[in-house]
Amino acid sequence: MSYSYLFRDDYSEGMHPRILEALARTNLQQEAGYGADTFSQEAEQLIKKMINKPNANVHFVSTGTQANLICLASILKPYESVIAVDTAHPNTRETGAIEATGHRINTVTGIEGRLTPTSILEVLESHTNEHMVKPRVVFISQATELGTIYSKDELQQLSKVCRQAGLYLYIDGARMGSALMAQDADFDLSTIADICDMFYIGGTKNGALFGEAIVIVNPDLQQHFRYHLKQRGALLAKMRSISVQFIELFKDNLYFENAKHANMVARELATGIKQCGYDFLNSTSTNQVFPILPNGIIEKLQRQYAFYVLAKSLSTPNSSVIRLCTSWATPESAVQQFLGDLKNYRT
Amino acid sequence: MSYSYLFRDDYSEGMHPRILEALARTNLQQEAGYGADTFSQEAEQLIKKMINKPNANVHFVSTGTQANLICLASILKPYESVIAVDTAHPNTRETGAIEATGHRINTVTGIEGRLTPTSILEVLESHTNEHMVKPRVVFISQATELGTIYSKDELQQLSKVCRQAGLYLYIDGARMGSALMAQDADFDLSTIADICDMFYIGGTKNGALFGEAIVIVNPDLQQHFRYHLKQRGALLAKMRSISVQFIELFKDNLYFENAKHANMVARELATGIKQCGYDFLNSTSTNQVFPILPNGIIEKLQRQYAFYVLAKSLSTPNSSVIRLCTSWATPESAVQQFLGDLKNYRT
Amino acid sequence: MSYSYLFRDDYSEGMHPRILEALARTNLQQEAGYGADTFSQEAEQLIKKMINKPNANVHFVSTGTQANLICLASILKPYESVIAVDTAHPNTRETGAIEATGHRINTVTGIEGRLTPTSILEVLESHTNEHMVKPRVVFISQATELGTIYSKDELQQLSKVCRQAGLYLYIDGARMGSALMAQDADFDLSTIADICDMFYIGGTKNGALFGEAIVIVNPDLQQHFRYHLKQRGALLAKMRSISVQFIELFKDNLYFENAKHANMVARELATGIKQCGYDFLNSTSTNQVFPILPNGIIEKLQRQYAFYVLAKSLSTPNSSVIRLCTSWATPESAVQQFLGDLKNYRT
Amino acid sequence: MSYSYLFRDDYSEGMHPRILEALARTNLQQEAGYGADTFSQEAEQLIKKMINKPNANVHFVSTGTQANLICLASILKPYESVIAVDTAHPNTRETGAIEATGHRINTVTGIEGRLTPTSILEVLESHTNEHMVKPRVVFISQATELGTIYSKDELQQLSKVCRQAGLYLYIDGARMGSALMAQDADFDLSTIADICDMFYIGGTKNGALFGEAIVIVNPDLQQHFRYHLKQRGALLAKMRSISVQFIELFKDNLYFENAKHANMVARELATGIKQCGYDFLNSTSTNQVFPILPNGIIEKLQRQYAFYVLAKSLSTPNSSVIRLCTSWATPESAVQQFLGDLKNYRT
Repeated sequence: MSYSYLFRDDYSEGMHPRILEALARTNLQQEAGYGADTFSQEAEQLIKKMINKPNANVHFVSTGTQANLICLASILKPYESVIAVDTAHPNTRETGAIEATGHRINTVTGIEGRLTPTSILEVLESHTNEHMVKPRVVFISQATELGTIYSKDELQQLSKVCRQAGLYLYIDGARMGSALMAQDADFDLSTIADICDMFYIGGTKNGALFGEAIVIVNPDLQQHFRYHLKQRGALLAKMRSISVQFIELFKDNLYFENAKHANMVARELATGIKQCGYDFLNSTSTNQVFPILPNGIIEKLQRQYAFYVLAKSLSTPNSSVIRLCTSWATPESAVQQFLGDLKNYRT
Repeated sequence: MSYSYLFRDDYSEGMHPRILEALARTNLQQEAGYGADTFSQEAEQLIKKMINKPNANVHFVSTGTQANLICLASILKPYESVIAVDTAHPNTRETGAIEATGHRINTVTGIEGRLTPTSILEVLESHTNEHMVKPRVVFISQATELGTIYSKDELQQLSKVCRQAGLYLYIDGARMGSALMAQDADFDLSTIADICDMFYIGGTKNGALFGEAIVIVNPDLQQHFRYHLKQRGALLAKMRSISVQFIELFKDNLYFENAKHANMVARELATGIKQCGYDFLNSTSTNQVFPILPNGIIEKLQRQYAFYVLAKSLSTPNSSVIRLCTSWATPESAVQQFLGDLKNYRT
Repeated sequence: MSYSYLFRDDYSEGMHPRILEALARTNLQQEAGYGADTFSQEAEQLIKKMINKPNANVHFVSTGTQANLICLASILKPYESVIAVDTAHPNTRETGAIEATGHRINTVTGIEGRLTPTSILEVLESHTNEHMVKPRVVFISQATELGTIYSKDELQQLSKVCRQAGLYLYIDGARMGSALMAQDADFDLSTIADICDMFYIGGTKNGALFGEAIVIVNPDLQQHFRYHLKQRGALLAKMRSISVQFIELFKDNLYFENAKHANMVARELATGIKQCGYDFLNSTSTNQVFPILPNGIIEKLQRQYAFYVLAKSLSTPNSSVIRLCTSWATPESAVQQFLGDLKNYRT
Repeated sequence: MSYSYLFRDDYSEGMHPRILEALARTNLQQEAGYGADTFSQEAEQLIKKMINKPNANVHFVSTGTQANLICLASILKPYESVIAVDTAHPNTRETGAIEATGHRINTVTGIEGRLTPTSILEVLESHTNEHMVKPRVVFISQATELGTIYSKDELQQLSKVCRQAGLYLYIDGARMGSALMAQDADFDLSTIADICDMFYIGGTKNGALFGEAIVIVNPDLQQHFRYHLKQRGALLAKMRSISVQFIELFKDNLYFENAKHANMVARELATGIKQCGYDFLNSTSTNQVFPILPNGIIEKLQRQYAFYVLAKSLSTPNSSVIRLCTSWATPESAVQQFLGDLKNYRT
């Protein structure tokens, strides 16, 4: 099927042209393997400076699932578990990757994809002896899988609960760029680094060809991390292939501009859809929009555009929730065309 | 330290310029994620055609360790094990990746890195009941980690023993290109596919930026393989980033030309070193050369060139075995310069 | 603290005197190790005859958690999962034992501890591709952890759904005796064997010193099971220590008489408590009773009797749900004493 | 087949009559489950007192393989490994139980079953970076699988090397009793506790019906150990079934007397065989004897006695190494009968 445009996800294209240029520019330079190259050193320094954590450690991996499973498994003892909302990526879209490393995810109901301090405490209260797993890490995503974000205050509350309870806080930042550039964001990357023990900054969904940057803030969790990477098959011989990309993303503001653009066109989509009179599953300020549209219109749109139909709407009859996802590469013209078609189909 | 040239490995550079071009050419085309893109389909077809196995399955992953651990773990039941030579990569350089999936490697002594049918039978004879692991997969590398290759006859002998004993045969092809292009090679990729159940074709060490192509020949081992990939964090959202590279490598003869060049310059190195009167650990026809040089000369060479010093020589006093590794990118001039310096230092 | 009687669980005593006698009688007979002894053969035959499955396999292990983790892990491929109710033992009281073997439990809400065919289908409908685990085994307990039982019709419905969907059905029979002897039970052990693929018959909670008998009905799941047992540390050198007990339990009706007694005294407890005017969390016909008592009375009872206080009652103010558990060894006098005290405290 | 006597192993009988008595005596006493019973407390105190380590922790499990896999997995991080001799039980007779917990065993060649400090250092020297596993625990058996023992000096040397290198020392004491009672033993249980971090005292092979006592000397390794036990299915509901046995074994000298008897009859066997002019694989002072006998005589003996034929003798033509194993229950008359038959067959 040939579509006018894919709003299916934020990884439909290759990489931002500047990253392609960077790969070309550095291509034939001989470098050491497995992360001992000068690019990986430089990328690590750039990221540490940006988050204002000179003692952090930075490692590069290929996928978000890889980041999640390696990071969490590196922290946990065999009997320890992860607390996460039921919509968290490792619980819904990672084929049991965490359990495959031997650990349970204690799932709780989220609020628009967000975990609350209360639900953390409830898990702790019901896990009190050796007949049960011992929760040790709290997993959150920023932005969440439902396109929402945690405010600075919410992050700090979570962090406080974790520190008081002896839990580590881990953040999945597959869409960290989009979260940071949300209009209502009141935090930056150094806020993130301040409140958590380990997190990753997503490249794949924000203009990189592939690659995620793991940041280990807590020194207790840094030792021998490369052993974990290698054992799980994550240590690239040409680590430069990721780190060159992250240099380009972070040496000036490309990472933030990419996300800003994605958010902006998502907002245009949302505004236009709202003007057509449609409601939304939830309010988002990132690059995902979840409108509720009549099934007949969805069918027509699907002939032109690719996107996910998530579920029948519970509130509006004969309607469904769809997901529209934008990226650094989404042209405004595609948004305008989509909105134009929506208006036409409506009448 | 600034070197004249790195003979340290075959992944010191980025990617072959034609691959860079291919990534640039296809960069902004919108595609489906996780391997459902047109490039991944095309790359799979190309590889299946080349090996003459229309019913094979092809999957792309990021690293060789990832390929090995996912492939082997996908085959084995919890109590089953892998037979391999002690110099096999999973036994020496993969941080216990196979054991981390729960399986033992039954190691045997190899002959210049090669596994023999006899040693397979010996392992089987000593593993006969439920107090021991049950060997189920035979692991070999082509080319081996010592730069040697199996002949067609040796491959067929191994295959025959495996089939008679109910063992699967798996081939690590990190340096498959170099093996195929060895002057004494009497097999091609379809020979490989004929004699084994599963193998991978290495991209990283033969001109790709990154990426390995897993080929599942045996239909019994094909089902649900993508679940394994996803669970281990190996399924790239932009799978195109690997498959575009493999199209470029295999749409004409780039894969073979890259390897041919690497072998050719390695041969020049070996010939030149022999002419200087030095001996070798073993005879190789691929892109790795293992000369035995006096320690004094090694020290001088190390100021100009990067390479591994493997071990003290057992046969020649005050000498050590070094490894020189060439690639598609190694210029003949670098080889000539090295040989020139070697001659100078000798005198 | 010294109690008049422990109603805490069904494993407060050692073993039924007849089992002790059997151990004494056979004690000095020399036998082969690891299950090759004549007692283990005899116990297997007895159980196979009773369930009318001459081709079943029987294995003996030490604990129920061991049975569950070994059985489930022996069935599942790495990406496959287990469907169970949230109150299922592996989800609540086994320290993540199933996840520790690499597998997710897909939990659903049960009805008084029972799993419904509908909830199985719902899990299947939401697990459709390689980004999610693949459910493969349905886990139920008979009796359930809440003291309820599945009727023959319910078991057959579950079995039918499983077979149609390509799922295996596994039954945790830690309290199988009590289920079989429930007044409303309309099934026997051969019914159990007919409708499922694998189950275990609990000894520990029905008069054995320790030990559970795993029965593998489905021949596809029988091969090499002893490898799993040995690898997990479950194969006793003196397997006779369990099998002699199972011979005694099953050579006549001791297993059933033990359970019948436990159920009978539980019923007396329930009847007496009801006569005092108290309600119950749910209605049970096995050896567990869950009355809802005023907190003040619970405090008084706790000075004399040991039992678990499960949770605040949601329906009755200032009351809590307690669990009273009886066994083959519970004397009727202890029940009468408890009921007498309850009546006294009430006034 | 009906034998005059089984010299096959040290677990052919049930339990020492005094243990049976103890189980009978305590049988109907009501106790708390999962190790909170008074017997388990008492057994722990007895053992701690005997080894003179008031801060040690003691736990009871069912089998030696279970002890080994739980203890080692409780210590190791995912990328860490165990150093052991190739004849070590986990390497030869535990179906890959250690690898199944995710860890490699780095095997080295032993000297009559004993590990040397030199071989530990060699493993460390060849494991230096994140491409390799990181050795963390040294595993030894006392007595070894070949019936030999480490002297006090050898144990202290091993301990010293471990502490200097940051390695933990773990001792498999399946046959600890026999080692302690060897005529040439110059150590006691408190010596063992002094030089290692964790060990277990075998019950199964020294008169118990089943059960092994894990002793955790190093406080760093004590925390949350019961979580490991429960997760692996090792926590018995009626933990008393093991601890009552250990009380009986250690409340006076039963444990030592059992072993002393086994060693004594083994010595009689060895002396008698030597007097017949036969040689031995190695010299042992414990309850295993490895004579080298002519194949014709072995065949005749096998009609009367059960024992293992290990391998063809390398030194003596038409002869094989057999293993004769004695126990607390082996009557001297059986030894005399065996020796009498041997003399007869020889002529």
